[in-house]
This record gives sequence, C-alpha cells and structure tokens, in this order.
Amino acid sequence: MHISIVAKIVGVLLMLFSMLANLPSILVSFIYGDGEVSSFLTSLMITFGVGFGLWVFTWRSRQEMRTRDGFLVVTLFWTVLSIFGALPFLFSTNTPLSVTDAVFESFSGLTTTGATVITGLDFLPKSILFYRQQLQWLGGMGIVALAVAVLPMLGIGGMQLYRAESPGPVKNDNLVPRLAETAKALWYIYMGLTAVCALAYWAAGMTLFDAICHSFSTVAIGGFSTHDASMGYFNSDIINMIAVFFMFLAGVNFALHFTAWQRRSVSQYLRDPETRFYASILLAIAVFTVLVLYLTETYNAQNAFVHGIFQTVSIATTTGFTTADFNSWPLALPYLLIYASIIGACAGSTGGGMKVIRILLIFKQGFREVKRLIHPNAVITVKLGRTMVPDRVIESVWGFFAVYVLVYLVLLIVLLALDLEVVTAFSAVGASLNNLGPGLEGVASNYADIGNTAKWVLCLAMLLGRLEIFTLLVLFMPMFWRR
Amino acid sequence: MHISIVAKIVGVLLMLFSMLANLPSILVSFIYGDGEVSSFLTSLMITFGVGFGLWVFTWRSRQEMRTRDGFLVVTLFWTVLSIFGALPFLFSTNTPLSVTDAVFESFSGLTTTGATVITGLDFLPKSILFYRQQLQWLGGMGIVALAVAVLPMLGIGGMQLYRAESPGPVKNDNLVPRLAETAKALWYIYMGLTAVCALAYWAAGMTLFDAICHSFSTVAIGGFSTHDASMGYFNSDIINMIAVFFMFLAGVNFALHFTAWQRRSVSQYLRDPETRFYASILLAIAVFTVLVLYLTETYNAQNAFVHGIFQTVSIATTTGFTTADFNSWPLALPYLLIYASIIGACAGSTGGGMKVIRILLIFKQGFREVKRLIHPNAVITVKLGRTMVPDRVIESVWGFFAVYVLVYLVLLIVLLALDLEVVTAFSAVGASLNNLGPGLEGVASNYADIGNTAKWVLCLAMLLGRLEIFTLLVLFMPMFWRR
Ligand SMILES: [K+]
Ligand SMILES: [K+]
Repeated sequence: MHISIVAKIVGVLLMLFSMLANLPSILVSFIYGDGEVSSFLTSLMITFGVGFGLWVFTWRSRQEMRTRDGFLVVTLFWTVLSIFGALPFLFSTNTPLSVTDAVFESFSGLTTTGATVITGLDFLPKSILFYRQQLQWLGGMGIVALAVAVLPMLGIGGMQLYRAESPGPVKNDNLVPRLAETAKALWYIYMGLTAVCALAYWAAGMTLFDAICHSFSTVAIGGFSTHDASMGYFNSDIINMIAVFFMFLAGVNFALHFTAWQRRSVSQYLRDPETRFYASILLAIAVFTVLVLYLTETYNAQNAFVHGIFQTVSIATTTGFTTADFNSWPLALPYLLIYASIIGACAGSTGGGMKVIRILLIFKQGFREVKRLIHPNAVITVKLGRTMVPDRVIESVWGFFAVYVLVYLVLLIVLLALDLEVVTAFSAVGASLNNLGPGLEGVASNYADIGNTAKWVLCLAMLLGRLEIFTLLVLFMPMFWRR
Repeated sequence: MHISIVAKIVGVLLMLFSMLANLPSILVSFIYGDGEVSSFLTSLMITFGVGFGLWVFTWRSRQEMRTRDGFLVVTLFWTVLSIFGALPFLFSTNTPLSVTDAVFESFSGLTTTGATVITGLDFLPKSILFYRQQLQWLGGMGIVALAVAVLPMLGIGGMQLYRAESPGPVKNDNLVPRLAETAKALWYIYMGLTAVCALAYWAAGMTLFDAICHSFSTVAIGGFSTHDASMGYFNSDIINMIAVFFMFLAGVNFALHFTAWQRRSVSQYLRDPETRFYASILLAIAVFTVLVLYLTETYNAQNAFVHGIFQTVSIATTTGFTTADFNSWPLALPYLLIYASIIGACAGSTGGGMKVIRILLIFKQGFREVKRLIHPNAVITVKLGRTMVPDRVIESVWGFFAVYVLVYLVLLIVLLALDLEVVTAFSAVGASLNNLGPGLEGVASNYADIGNTAKWVLCLAMLLGRLEIFTLLVLFMPMFWRR
C-alpha cells in the first residue's frame, strides 16, 4: 500500500473539489443575493485547508500509484468528498440541516442517487439548489472516469471486458496519467451533452437557472430537481421528451459515445450488443407500461404515452425524475419499474443498477446452462456480437450478481430490524443500491421521515452501489492490506 | 424422445400410486368409521384405470429410457401424481374441496411443501388427515430418489458433484434399473427413520395416530399436521425437541446417511463439508434467535430456548411446523427465518430451498472473486474439503442461482399484480418455491384466503421448487424436443 501517494491524491482532489463545488455556488448566491455566500466560503476554506494539509505533508512523495491502490483511491474519492460536500448544508444560514441529513444529501448528490431529505425545495435559496445539482454533475464526472477507465482496470464484476475499449493509453501500469488522459476525452463529451441538454430545456421553456440545474442532474443520471414536484413541475410534454432523450443517451457507455464521435458514425451504437439490449429492455417495458396505463384507464392516451415512457426511462436508467405518482400505478407497475432499475443502465454510463451488460451475460450463461443439460458433452461458448466472452469474465459477473443479491438481502433485513415498513425498506434499499433515488411508499417523494440510523445505512448502500460493491469489499479483506 | 417408454413408466407409477396412496387411507377410514371409504375407493379406481390404460397401450415397448428422458419423467411424476392425488379431496363425502383447493392441497402434499388451504384440521375425518400426511411421506420418497439418484445424473445446478456418491451402479446409461437400485437402498433408511421417529413421538405422549402422521411429515420435511395449531397443539417441550432432532436428520443428504450406516461411523457426517456448513448455519441462526427472543423479553428463558430452536430448525430445513406465532417475533426475525429457508437443507435430503451446498459454493466462489481482484494473476481453486471443485460445477451453481432469483422475482410480481399484499406475496413465493409451507401475514397459518389464480401460480412455484427449476425449464426448450 502506498499511503503517501494515496494521501497526496486525496489532498489534491479535496483542493480541486473545494473550488469546483463551492465557487460557482458562491457566484449564484451573489447573483440572487440569497445570503449563502458565507456558508460556501466557510466550506471552501475548510475543504481546501484539509486538502492542502494532506498535500503539504506528501507532495514530495515520488511513489507511483499502482492498479491495486485504485480500490482505496476510488473509495476515498466518494467518501471523503461526500463528507466535505456536506459542509454547505450544515453551514447554510437559511436552511441548515442536521449532520445526518447533510451527509445523506451530499452522498446522495455525489453518488448521483438523487434521494433527498429536504422538503420544500421550491423555497430553498437558489445557491443551495444549484449546489445540490452541481454535486450530482461532479459525481457524474467521477463516475464516467470510474466506469470507463478505473473499473475495467480493476476488473470488477466482469468489467475487464471493457479493458481494451477505454480511450487513452492502456499499457502503462501507472494509474494517474492513464486515468487523466482517458477522463479528459470523456469529459468533453460529458460537458457537450450537458450544454446541449441545457439549451434544449431552456428553449422548451425552462428558466435558464432551471435548465442548467436540470441538465446537470439529467446527464449525471442524478435525478435531483429544484422543485418538489420534480419534472412534473414544468407540466410540459416537450420538456419530458427532451429529458427522455438525454436520460437515454446518458445511460449509454461513454466510451461508445467517444468512438461514435471520433468516427462520426451512429452505427457504432447499433452494432453494440449492450446498447441494443438496453434499448430493447426500455422499449419493452415502456410499451407494456403505456398499454397498462391506457387499458386500466389510469390516464388518457396522451398522458399514458408521455408518463409511461417518461417514468420507464427515468426509473430504468436510474435517473429518478418523476412526472407522475407512479407509486399508485396499477398492476404491480411500481415493482416492475423497481425491477427495471435493478438492471439499470449500460456499463460506462453515469447510470446505476447492476448494468445491462451483466444482465445480458447472466441471461446468456443461464441459457448456456440449459443447453448443457440437454447436450452435456457439447462445447458451448458465450458470445457478445462476434466476440467470445472468456469464462473468467462470466465468473466475475456471477460473483458480482451473488454479492449484489446478498448485500441487498442484508441491507433489507437491517432496515426491517430498524422498523421500516416492508415496501419502504425494500424500495429504499433498491433505490439506494441502484443509485436510483425515489422509492415507494414511505420514501416515494423524499427520505425525510425515516430514522437517522436508517439514513446512515442508506448512505452505505449508495456508496456500495456506486463502487460496484467489490471496491469497498476488497478493502475489508486483510489480504488487501498485506505486504 | 421415447414417448412410449415414458407413457409406460407413468402408467406403472399411477397404478402403484393408486394403491400406495389410497389403500392405507381406506383402512384408516374403516377403523375410524368416518364414512370416507367410498371417496378413496373411487379415487383408487380412477387412478388405477388411467394408469392401466396407459400401460396396456405401451407395455410392449422395448425402448430404453435414457438420461435425457429423465427431465420429462420427473416432471410428469410430480404433476400427474399431484393431479390424481387431488381426487380424494374432491370426492370427500364430509369435506369436499373445490378443484383448485384439492389440486393445491395435493401439490402441496406431494412436493412436501405443506401449505394448506384447509382450516379446521382438527375436525376433519381421520382418513383424510392420514391421507394428507401420507401424500407428504410418498412425496418424500420421491424426492430422496430424485435428489440422490436423478438430479446428479441430469447434472442440474451443480448436482453432478454428487454423481459418484449415489449408491448403486452408476456406469449404466439406462435410467430405470439404476434408479430402482439406488432408491431401494435409500428407502430403507427413509422408512427406518420414519419408524424411529413415530415411536419417539408416541413414547413422548402423542396418540399412535398422531405419532405416525407426524413422523410422516417430519421425515419428509413436509410440515403438514393433523391440527390447526401444528406442533404447538401438543404443547410439549420433549415432543418439540424430538421433532428438532428428526427434522435435522431429514435435512441431511440421504446418501450420507447410507454411507454412515454402511460403515457404522458417525465421523462420515463430521467430515462432510456440506453437513458441517448446514449445522453451523442452523446453530448460528438458532443462537441469534434465542438471544433476541430472550433479550426482547418475548419469552422467558425456557420458552425462548425451545421456540427459538424449534422455529429455526423447522423453517430453515423448510419443514414448516410451528409451535409459536413467529410472524410477530421482533427485530425482523420472521424475515431472517424466511432467508434461512432460502438456503434450505442439504442436497440429497427431503428438504427444500436452494440447498446448503450451493450456498457454500457461491460463498467460496464469491470469496475467490475478491481474492482475484487483489491478485489478478494468481490461480485460485475452489475446494470442498480436500477435493477441488471443477469450474463446470460452479458455473452450473451460478446458473441455478440466477434462475432461482429470476423465477422468484417473476412469481413475486405476478402475485403482486393479482393484488396480494407485499409481505404475503413475498413470503408465499418463498414458502412455495422453497417447499417450506407457512409464509407471513396473509399466508401465515393457511392459504385459504388467497385467490384461485394465485393458488395455481403457487402450485407452479411448488413444482418449480421441487424440480429445481431447471427440470421444468428444459422442457420448454424447443431444443429438448428435437431429434
Ligand atoms: K439517480
Ligand atoms: K415443507
């Protein structure tokens, strides 16, 4: 373990984060005169100070960071930044939160979960609102780098499959330059998508402030909104369809966006088995949902179409925006959507859930098992497009699946023991572990009413989800710390 | 596909079943003069007639049955016998059931699930009570043969691991003689256990009738009782502990019982990794449950001990007897026990659930994945005791796990769409798919109050559980029927 290089990186990250997160909010507070300048300034100074402290003691370190250190850095990235990200909520002059609530809101923001403990969003200071949205956007940048560049290298849950696909140099075992190179390429796309999305929202009738804020949480698949009614506030079919379009895009592998952009070719998407499966799942669930909503006369044709498609894409990609009270939809539709969020978005996107590629591989392997029962001696391979998938990758996916189910069950029973209602507990675990945001019943619109201990458990769940469980799990193995 | 040999076997099975199931009940009805003789006689004649009809048309068949035909025979065994086993409930002069209820009760009996739609068991004719218990016992005999002899040959869900262990000749590809040989050896043990269990119950104070009836459902891990209060009726700590002992034994691999008996050596059990894991799980859950019951002052020390141990073993082995209203136990204990039933008993036992060996292998493989993340280039093997487990077996176990989770989720959403309450639906699926019996809330004491469609769905769940899902799944593959 190279503690000094890890500390140096965290120090630099904190200094960077202190400015990226707080400076724009200070500007917003200044523009709107909402009296929160000092809260952000205090947060900035504390965060910068701690980061600088770490850096001062370690900047001479000439250690190289190695692949294995990645587990620790990634975990620290989200925990440390989430903790310091909570400061403005604590220090807010108008609407200070308790420690638990501030940390919950910050974890929920940076992991792009989008669960909130705040009610009365519409009356919050503009700068705090902006800060929340921006936390998600920064979290999304972290995820893109994590999912496209780091996880494939670490080999978590079959993600070594994507090792060759990351843009940037791959041969080097020194994590930092490789990561920086890859991340830069992807962030251009990320920022481009955000800008286009914001312009589209603005053109469709949002205020500039809301357009920017919602573009942040759309492209980050975050789901935070500046209004309690979420996207439903705007009551505009055009805005809803713009959101659907950008949520869909943000749920696609960013490495694929990169290749498609480089080669100026949409056929890249059509040829990718994961993207095709992703689109098919969304289409199938959307059609079913729209039909049920229409046939059960929950809505008229137009509303069934818009709300059905919007909620399907929003929940299945794990964005978590709402336009309708989908909790009360008939025929177990709420559960169907929660299931969809377990599948989640594509690997390498800003979305959560188990990731489409893993579900695809599990299906293919399950199908292979059935074939093997009928033809015990046949050699049957699992293929993605024309490429054979190594058994090693499939084993990793299984491992991920088993651990995911186990973690889900353990978190569920902990929440039940904390006296949450079953549906609330089941959906809260799902919404946190899949980085979705809204759950059902007791956590349908916000997480204000659940106990403090439960909130901390859910923070852990959001972190586990974002770190694809294994990153955190590895740190608890004595083997990791040896030598 | 060898249809004529399959039809011949089903014919013979039906003729055999018609007598085994109905003749003893006729005797019981005669002894107690409860007026049900004609119901059983009618059932016997119809069942025998259909069986004879099948046999007459096919007895000349000289086809050999091959391994692959096993999937069909095993599926038909449980479906056809369960359908004909429903006849006495339909024809009962005193307490006739509807078609749905009769079929449900019969499926629940023969699959040794033990879920009942009947209330007022204590007032039922003795012969009908006896018939129910006996259905479970016969089902248990079927499961022992299935689990020890057939599943390893078919290679379902990693069970090929046990291929070498089945007593009897193994080289032959002709299913029938091999199965008969193996089954005979195991049935002696099964019958011996039943006899000793019945004597113990009798000596502890049950009536001879109740002792025999409950020995049937104990050794079969069935859980049917002749009283609405289940084992709680007897209100005897000694009877409860006898039940715990025999449920525990019935949850062990019968092939292991066979070897232990042959070599007259208890050390066989201690050396078996699955049995050790099984005992450890039960011990851990029992200790936790007893402690929680005592510390929360749910019971005094003695009752916490007895009820805690009894319910843990009863639910975790998937027997499903109850002595206490464990539904209302504090701190999510009911869910913990339902989780335990998902693990279930050992492979090759009469118990249900996913089977201990699979959980053990999933843990070991999960642990291997974590190790592999830390040491990507190390060759790490999975071992059971001193034996290396082939990757092929582990892949099958993963396949089983994934399909199990998928089937659970699909059945759950179907029941939710049929408007069952969440806890009721969740536990009913678990209780059926794991062949456990009692669920929580709406299906805690019986299944009388749920809709007819839901009952048919649960019949399917019981069947899927008993057939380890894949047996049935294979039949739906066009590939299976080809050539
Ligand atoms: K989200
Ligand atoms: K049972």
